[in-house]
Amino acid sequence: MNNFEFCNPAKIIFGKGTENQVGKLVKKCGGSKILLHYGGSSIKKNGLYDSVVKSLKDSGLFFLELGGVQPNPRLSLVRKGIELCKENDIDFILAVGGGSVIDSAKGIAAAMKNEKDIWDYYMFHPDEVIDALPIGVVLTIPAAGSETSDGSVITNEDGNYKRHIGSNCLIPKFAILNPEVTFTLPEYQTACGASDILAHLMERYFTQVSNVDLTDRLIEASIRSILFNAPLALKDPQNYDIRAEIMWAGTLAHNNLLDTGRVGDWASHEIEHELSGIYDIAHGAGLSIVFPAWMKYVYRENIDKFVQFAIRVFDVDYSFDNKERIVIEMINRLEKWYKEMGLPTRLSDAGINDDKLVEMSKKALEGRLSLGNFKKLQSADVHEILKLAL
Amino acid sequence: MNNFEFCNPAKIIFGKGTENQVGKLVKKCGGSKILLHYGGSSIKKNGLYDSVVKSLKDSGLFFLELGGVQPNPRLSLVRKGIELCKENDIDFILAVGGGSVIDSAKGIAAAMKNEKDIWDYYMFHPDEVIDALPIGVVLTIPAAGSETSDGSVITNEDGNYKRHIGSNCLIPKFAILNPEVTFTLPEYQTACGASDILAHLMERYFTQVSNVDLTDRLIEASIRSILFNAPLALKDPQNYDIRAEIMWAGTLAHNNLLDTGRVGDWASHEIEHELSGIYDIAHGAGLSIVFPAWMKYVYRENIDKFVQFAIRVFDVDYSFDNKERIVIEMINRLEKWYKEMGLPTRLSDAGINDDKLVEMSKKALEGRLSLGNFKKLQSADVHEILKLAL
Repeated sequence: MNNFEFCNPAKIIFGKGTENQVGKLVKKCGGSKILLHYGGSSIKKNGLYDSVVKSLKDSGLFFLELGGVQPNPRLSLVRKGIELCKENDIDFILAVGGGSVIDSAKGIAAAMKNEKDIWDYYMFHPDEVIDALPIGVVLTIPAAGSETSDGSVITNEDGNYKRHIGSNCLIPKFAILNPEVTFTLPEYQTACGASDILAHLMERYFTQVSNVDLTDRLIEASIRSILFNAPLALKDPQNYDIRAEIMWAGTLAHNNLLDTGRVGDWASHEIEHELSGIYDIAHGAGLSIVFPAWMKYVYRENIDKFVQFAIRVFDVDYSFDNKERIVIEMINRLEKWYKEMGLPTRLSDAGINDDKLVEMSKKALEGRLSLGNFKKLQSADVHEILKLAL
Repeated sequence: MNNFEFCNPAKIIFGKGTENQVGKLVKKCGGSKILLHYGGSSIKKNGLYDSVVKSLKDSGLFFLELGGVQPNPRLSLVRKGIELCKENDIDFILAVGGGSVIDSAKGIAAAMKNEKDIWDYYMFHPDEVIDALPIGVVLTIPAAGSETSDGSVITNEDGNYKRHIGSNCLIPKFAILNPEVTFTLPEYQTACGASDILAHLMERYFTQVSNVDLTDRLIEASIRSILFNAPLALKDPQNYDIRAEIMWAGTLAHNNLLDTGRVGDWASHEIEHELSGIYDIAHGAGLSIVFPAWMKYVYRENIDKFVQFAIRVFDVDYSFDNKERIVIEMINRLEKWYKEMGLPTRLSDAGINDDKLVEMSKKALEGRLSLGNFKKLQSADVHEILKLAL
């Protein structure tokens, strides 16, 4: 186990009706002039927008609105938000939405307290953000884990670069999680969210750091819970208890607790960012394509870690002289699960051919010496992984 | 799953040599006049005291010392600490030790910021503590989890009452966890610590709240890690990796994360407090006596929860028409594990006879309507449990 530091001070308010506390929570955090940031019309259709606005008004708070955040949130809207905040002396950003909205809010919050142009941090200095405006979250999609994470991913339309920043100051002050607001999520979005959560857990699981027994087991437990509950949510979308398990798992998968003492991989995420950067597919759908291919390419780097995963998570039978077979069987079961969730497991499933594999492989390495940690990948490796995903 | 709030802002600094950061951490928390609180001579023998004092001096901090905390920490020393703090305008309490030292520090810290006499809170108003001096921790024994918990347990020698307080303001600002300092723990103390950690996990596990899949699995994972690693630590006490697993598990077992959405039981803890309050036995040894007896007495209240535990944690084979047998087998395996750890599983193992069972049963209910949540216990129930433990 490696030395580590861990601190996640985000306050979680979880359960039915909790969105009605948002005004009081913002006030308690010292917010007085609020940017209310959101995406499309879904929060207006399901009543969440009205509840949030009522709660802010009841607390006597001034707020401005900036909607229109798209999946794979765009730098241009972040820049618009920055302008709004500067013009109006905004002191608190409230994100009502999923990972895209929260990540966009974080980009705006960071820009308000750092000297360089905000894209400079995303592209070249992801770890140099030192301060940010306080952020609060009302979560609508369990997926990205951005509601208590220290990271933000933004897409620059100029060149289709999708890049991230990370800093403790980006951890939201509070996150309101009401599983009821996820009842109306379309099936495909529920599936993509589950895929993202699963990927966050697997990225952390596949480490070359040894002697990480407790966190191994905690990650395995979380993955089993997602594998069990997510397909049930597709069949029974208004089941509170199932939605609640997924929502809480999505947060815990990405609040850094399950990183403690280990080094995650994250190559699959970075490769996926090239996919969704160019083809604008859903992040979770890109991950269900990339992850099995990545596994096939890297498992020999530490086959026993994959065997442990196969046995403990996918209940594959252990047989000591057939380790490769155990791993392949696990990957088959994982792909079967993705398919059951209605997700693509090949580029062709998402209508993507081999035209841009080389371009994506090169771009993934731009500004970086290598990708991932389980095996350090170069452009040629990324190309091989993408070919395995065809 | 129940609605819940969760926030644990304690900063964890985990790993080799981390105790040398203590001066800087105290300063960062705003501490300038420090009470350095500890127990006996062990930290002077193993060099930890010297490292801490050097770090405080290097940071130019003023500090006073109060040693002498005993296991089952006493109210009289808490009162002494309060006097010292008042006389010297102490603004930060640094606890270097295990749960007893930290709990004693929390008692002092709470007294400094609340109006009533401190024992009033422990005895009658455990949830009414509203503020406290900031606390920092250098942990020496993985056991009580007090290093990031919101609770404190103190024994009043006048009547041998052992009672607790709980409040978010009692969560330490930071906890330094270096597994190396646990290399020299006596075998029995390592065992008692593991028993305490296991009990914290089981108290949370046995809930009547249904649909708590994720937290069930996380608790099971943590318990499996303790069951696996603790016996290894007895055989190989200087193995860093094994000590590290136990130390991190001890903290996560009691930081309230594994409570989220559920209601723990805690009757076994309260019954044990009567045991150690009167007989001054180690808390972990009292728990290994009380828990199996409690299980035998209550499992019929929700046998399927115990069956799940038996199957997932102790790998008992499932057979649907023998649920009682599955549970009894699990309790046998748990008792076997305690014995392997050198811990008592009967009152007689600890030299305790039935002289005071009635007295303890009555005292456990003093000032309370009932004990526990899995089954709400009265004095007569506690008496039966203690008889099962004879």
